[in-house]
Amino acid sequence: MQKGIKVALDAMGGDHAPQEIVKGAVDAVNANQNIHVFLVGQKDKVERELKQYSYPLEQISIVDAEEVIETAEPPVMAIRKKKKSSIVLGMNMVKQKEADAFVSAGSSGAVLVGGQVIVGRIKGIERPPLAPLIPTEKGVSLLIDCGANVDARPSHLVQFAKIGSIYMKHVVGIENPKVAIVNIGAEEEKGNALVKETFPLLKECEDINFTGSIEAREIPHGEADVIVCEAFTGNVILKLYEGLSSTLLGVVKRGLMSSLRSKIGALLIKPALKETLKSFDASVYGGAPLLGLTGLVVKTHGSSGATEIRNAILQCLTFKEQEINEKIKNNINSSGQG
Amino acid sequence: MQKGIKVALDAMGGDHAPQEIVKGAVDAVNANQNIHVFLVGQKDKVERELKQYSYPLEQISIVDAEEVIETAEPPVMAIRKKKKSSIVLGMNMVKQKEADAFVSAGSSGAVLVGGQVIVGRIKGIERPPLAPLIPTEKGVSLLIDCGANVDARPSHLVQFAKIGSIYMKHVVGIENPKVAIVNIGAEEEKGNALVKETFPLLKECEDINFTGSIEAREIPHGEADVIVCEAFTGNVILKLYEGLSSTLLGVVKRGLMSSLRSKIGALLIKPALKETLKSFDASVYGGAPLLGLTGLVVKTHGSSGATEIRNAILQCLTFKEQEINEKIKNNINSSGQG
Repeated sequence: MQKGIKVALDAMGGDHAPQEIVKGAVDAVNANQNIHVFLVGQKDKVERELKQYSYPLEQISIVDAEEVIETAEPPVMAIRKKKKSSIVLGMNMVKQKEADAFVSAGSSGAVLVGGQVIVGRIKGIERPPLAPLIPTEKGVSLLIDCGANVDARPSHLVQFAKIGSIYMKHVVGIENPKVAIVNIGAEEEKGNALVKETFPLLKECEDINFTGSIEAREIPHGEADVIVCEAFTGNVILKLYEGLSSTLLGVVKRGLMSSLRSKIGALLIKPALKETLKSFDASVYGGAPLLGLTGLVVKTHGSSGATEIRNAILQCLTFKEQEINEKIKNNINSSGQG
Repeated sequence: MQKGIKVALDAMGGDHAPQEIVKGAVDAVNANQNIHVFLVGQKDKVERELKQYSYPLEQISIVDAEEVIETAEPPVMAIRKKKKSSIVLGMNMVKQKEADAFVSAGSSGAVLVGGQVIVGRIKGIERPPLAPLIPTEKGVSLLIDCGANVDARPSHLVQFAKIGSIYMKHVVGIENPKVAIVNIGAEEEKGNALVKETFPLLKECEDINFTGSIEAREIPHGEADVIVCEAFTGNVILKLYEGLSSTLLGVVKRGLMSSLRSKIGALLIKPALKETLKSFDASVYGGAPLLGLTGLVVKTHGSSGATEIRNAILQCLTFKEQEINEKIKNNINSSGQG
């Protein structure tokens, strides 16, 4: 398992745990023999699910975690009190290097707090952002931050811009990535207090390619490689992306059933349409890494099914190869884009 | 012209002024003989455009306004200094009852400030919100606020919830409209400081049907009739709606051209697809009224073309009949849903 990866998976996190999570783990190890998954969760429940499937036995093991952190729990308290929860135990495995990555569809807040408190931040990182790649007309853009870091300060957004630039340059391979801040108008004078304070600071940054404001309308056109915003706004953008794409797909499908003519047409276009809309489906991307930690922590949607979990696990192989956090560590304290 | 309307139109506002604005006015009067449009703007420029078209001459007149308020100008200063601008003159026509409505694609900030300072607020209204109807799977929802009122306070959001309920009940005709606040999770504990402070206040409101948080993912499904948020978030939602719908349409079109099979299918589905996607095109709705003023002020997108301007003018007929602001006035200070 030279090139393999050991993934600690939160078997109890998310709306469809443990069923879909366990199925996702099975699908992942069946897809790639270089993956070992530790299913961290309540042993009896996880075993019951796992029994249904066939898979290479040596690729999955169960780590018993008797406690469960619920989505509604205040995160700081939950991480502090529930030492035997899947999130705390899984994070500890990353810290102790027993696992290369931790993947969870559970409480965003608890994953964020656990990442900082247990795994630990890279020196100099103020707030580790959750930064998913979102599909655009031109490819992908990095939306930074979508985490639970609400009510950020200008200095946080400036650091997100730097971290995002490092990611897009060193991981995605885009030279001189364009950085823009989400705003309600193109002019520098526009915006809320946070954006107005942050804008001049970004302009002064010599180590990023800041191109100014971006209106939400322009995001799907791929006008910026790194889209900087505070987490509340980022969360709204990410979730509206998902909701609107799936709603439009449904609306189009129903519309096509409205006449015989279009029904025949629909049969003919089905493969092409499916392929096209898949390229705009955020779930393909599986999960988003929490950037700026000393270990790899990946958060997937709370609503993740087996496919998203499988994709998030497979993605960890890439994240590990790309050495994301190592690259952030080596570049954040020098000149941003290194 | 008993049932007609007189609309003062900002001929100088928006990215495509005065060309598209003048064309929109011509299209509107050609579509409906009960409309009179005052084109407020630089006389020579407006005349030059208007000369190209044929229309009932008695339905359009020009009001000379030598000054122009640019989008980048600080709004308060612009309204105070540029007394001969199209926005100030047009708003004054509404105030003096020389016009029934003012329509502008110009600076949101200036329209908002002008609406408050020149036209005036209904007694008891703290901040007049800009509230467009957005398309959903089930029909339409009111997104309140999308204006230039950034950094709102909890009391503003509570009033938006009340105003939105009145609008959806008395104007759109939905009994007991469901009100939700945009949030990053379904639980009451989630959110930024503003949402956390506002949530309990909304829960206490007896005159609205508050259903809790709504995640952006659920907005296109039409889960709430009144979607409450502060203007920065509302603006992001509205513009991402536009951007993503048009981008997905383009992506689908290009996808369909990828094989002969799907090209034939595309020809067959074209009419149905067009019809379907039109129902999700926000530009059909033309503009949004600024709610809570003593007169009718409608803001359309800065990027409005002739179609949006035409629709916004025609919409004023409906807004006038619906007596939106009269209904807000009669209900806001009593019991919300009256």
